[in-house]
Amino acid sequence: MEKTLWKHIQTVRLQAPLVHNITNYVVMNSTANALLAAGASPIMAHAKAEVKDMVAIAHALVINIGTLDEYWADAMLLAAEAANAKGKPWVLDPVGAGATPYRDEVLQQLLSWRPTVIRGNGSEILALAKANKCKTKGVDSTAASLDAVTAALALIEQYGSIICISGATDIIIDNQQSIHFHNGHALMTKVTGLGCTASALIGAFAGVIDNKTEATVAAMSLLGIAGELAEKEAEGPGSLQVKILDKLYTLQEEEYCRQIKITRL
Amino acid sequence: MEKTLWKHIQTVRLQAPLVHNITNYVVMNSTANALLAAGASPIMAHAKAEVKDMVAIAHALVINIGTLDEYWADAMLLAAEAANAKGKPWVLDPVGAGATPYRDEVLQQLLSWRPTVIRGNGSEILALAKANKCKTKGVDSTAASLDAVTAALALIEQYGSIICISGATDIIIDNQQSIHFHNGHALMTKVTGLGCTASALIGAFAGVIDNKTEATVAAMSLLGIAGELAEKEAEGPGSLQVKILDKLYTLQEEEYCRQIKITRL
Amino acid sequence: MEKTLWKHIQTVRLQAPLVHNITNYVVMNSTANALLAAGASPIMAHAKAEVKDMVAIAHALVINIGTLDEYWADAMLLAAEAANAKGKPWVLDPVGAGATPYRDEVLQQLLSWRPTVIRGNGSEILALAKANKCKTKGVDSTAASLDAVTAALALIEQYGSIICISGATDIIIDNQQSIHFHNGHALMTKVTGLGCTASALIGAFAGVIDNKTEATVAAMSLLGIAGELAEKEAEGPGSLQVKILDKLYTLQEEEYCRQIKITRL
Repeated sequence: MEKTLWKHIQTVRLQAPLVHNITNYVVMNSTANALLAAGASPIMAHAKAEVKDMVAIAHALVINIGTLDEYWADAMLLAAEAANAKGKPWVLDPVGAGATPYRDEVLQQLLSWRPTVIRGNGSEILALAKANKCKTKGVDSTAASLDAVTAALALIEQYGSIICISGATDIIIDNQQSIHFHNGHALMTKVTGLGCTASALIGAFAGVIDNKTEATVAAMSLLGIAGELAEKEAEGPGSLQVKILDKLYTLQEEEYCRQIKITRL
Repeated sequence: MEKTLWKHIQTVRLQAPLVHNITNYVVMNSTANALLAAGASPIMAHAKAEVKDMVAIAHALVINIGTLDEYWADAMLLAAEAANAKGKPWVLDPVGAGATPYRDEVLQQLLSWRPTVIRGNGSEILALAKANKCKTKGVDSTAASLDAVTAALALIEQYGSIICISGATDIIIDNQQSIHFHNGHALMTKVTGLGCTASALIGAFAGVIDNKTEATVAAMSLLGIAGELAEKEAEGPGSLQVKILDKLYTLQEEEYCRQIKITRL
Repeated sequence: MEKTLWKHIQTVRLQAPLVHNITNYVVMNSTANALLAAGASPIMAHAKAEVKDMVAIAHALVINIGTLDEYWADAMLLAAEAANAKGKPWVLDPVGAGATPYRDEVLQQLLSWRPTVIRGNGSEILALAKANKCKTKGVDSTAASLDAVTAALALIEQYGSIICISGATDIIIDNQQSIHFHNGHALMTKVTGLGCTASALIGAFAGVIDNKTEATVAAMSLLGIAGELAEKEAEGPGSLQVKILDKLYTLQEEEYCRQIKITRL
């Protein structure tokens, strides 16, 4: 499978998919830079007057509710509807799901447009599935990702999405299989928005790769390995953020295949 | 006092306070990263439909008017009211106070919710107190921080806040004492938003430390010393911004105590 | 001409022009940092209640439509009108021109306030002039900058603006001359928002230099050379972004004059 995943990374670099992001203010710069470093072409646009037009020209849509409000929620729903209608892949990042009733309400509406992929931490996936009543603490994960698997299976059944649960172990689940990743490094949780970056990269890969599960796995493996390699040279979270972008851009096949730690269940 | 301050830095690292930020677009990424590097857990949320819920789950609230508009001003006022009602500590960063009548009008409304701590440069504190008619020049300080002390005392009397005046010398004043800091480095003024970072860190410390003056002093000392150490390795403002995050994360007691330059009056 | 350009760079460093930016969310942090590193003083403000007041105290205005929406478009129009009325220089960055009908509609309204300088890539300048029907692909350039010269001449005739077409060769055109630059490096296209940074720097230079064509040339040369020098030390786009800020701050005359590659036509 490593050869296939690497081929997908090359495909993104060669085809430069246009990724339309409606994402949060905190991560817009780092997300755009990560997409560029991975070879994709980012566009950020949220005006209700143009989101449908942007979806039409993009290869994929990524919706991240981190700093949502009423206007942005409307724009997200318009864009998700357009993606669904046109059969364009779209990724939902349910940042802070469960933190407030408002977030959960908007998320329920977004789910009805059947996201191609949902990526969140364990707490967010649990909250999204209303599988428990746990309070999410900010945007960090408090529920171990393994505990969220049951919640993910419920979401898959209801919406047909692929679910990616981020954590010390990343778990990617579709209706047939479960893939576990052991790449990445704990210091990555001290850099804001790497989860959001992961979602954006999934969008880029889903935009040009037919098998959306493989696209998700490839995107997660690229970021995890870039993070792992970057951490070896970093002196803290500031330099880690910078070096991850460098590694996303420079990563080569040999190093990728040496680092990847993947388990299929 | 150095031992107490260091203990507070350790407390933030161990307790990971959730800090709710309603801040400006320019600094959201760097603020979130600084909070993470210092051990806190940032959340950025501004929707009127959820700000009160976020205040309820947060340890502290930080309001920064850098890129305010009508919607955000309403959200800030709702959040400040909630923090006041629940007795949660909240920090006001009056970015660009005095630059336009609109800013001053919103600030007067925010002040009525009695911020726990106000942090600004000398010009901003002066403008906030209407102690003079000086025009603030952008978001940089033109009035020396010492000149703003009289203005600060007036604000303390009226609103009961602790005031932190940033500058070449940082001055922290409450109704009993005045503490002067000589840490930091001039190159820090060439990185956008380090004042905003200071305010956010004060929020983190005030969220878990009872003595809010000590919390303010500890936060300012952490950033000042991180900046000073970072500057020694930096090649300009770009690398300074990155290295400050590294230092916030890696700073140890011995180095902290060696660097701190504090005067109590 | 090199001596004159370097003098302008020094003028910005000494006079610290206040630059009012109404720009996109993605680049606010990097734009503010670039302005600071070049010696200018950035302010970001978009509230309809204060944009005219901000224009009044600023040396220049920069409008960038990257993440526009209805509210921001109104604010941009108010600010452009104020700049026009007061004779303040203002720069238009037509990000994504041609990507959606909405963008083009807002751009046509903005043009009526006669921007002092327009900076975009070839596709954007072409779209702006409606010189062709090419679809812009995201915010990257697909039309070679040379092809956009005809479009630029039409815009100059209609609006009296100076046009800067960014690309592998940067072209600056006014109603009398055309200046070609060969500085910069391809890796700069892998960092988000360096075009936006260029526009902001043009604003800073136009704010304090009478000859607006020279101001544009000086700003573009500063960024191109900073990028070129930074690339030599960078390990990818992440470190490039950081090192460009360092170089903007530390660049000295000798190195500048050695690097500059300029052709007047």
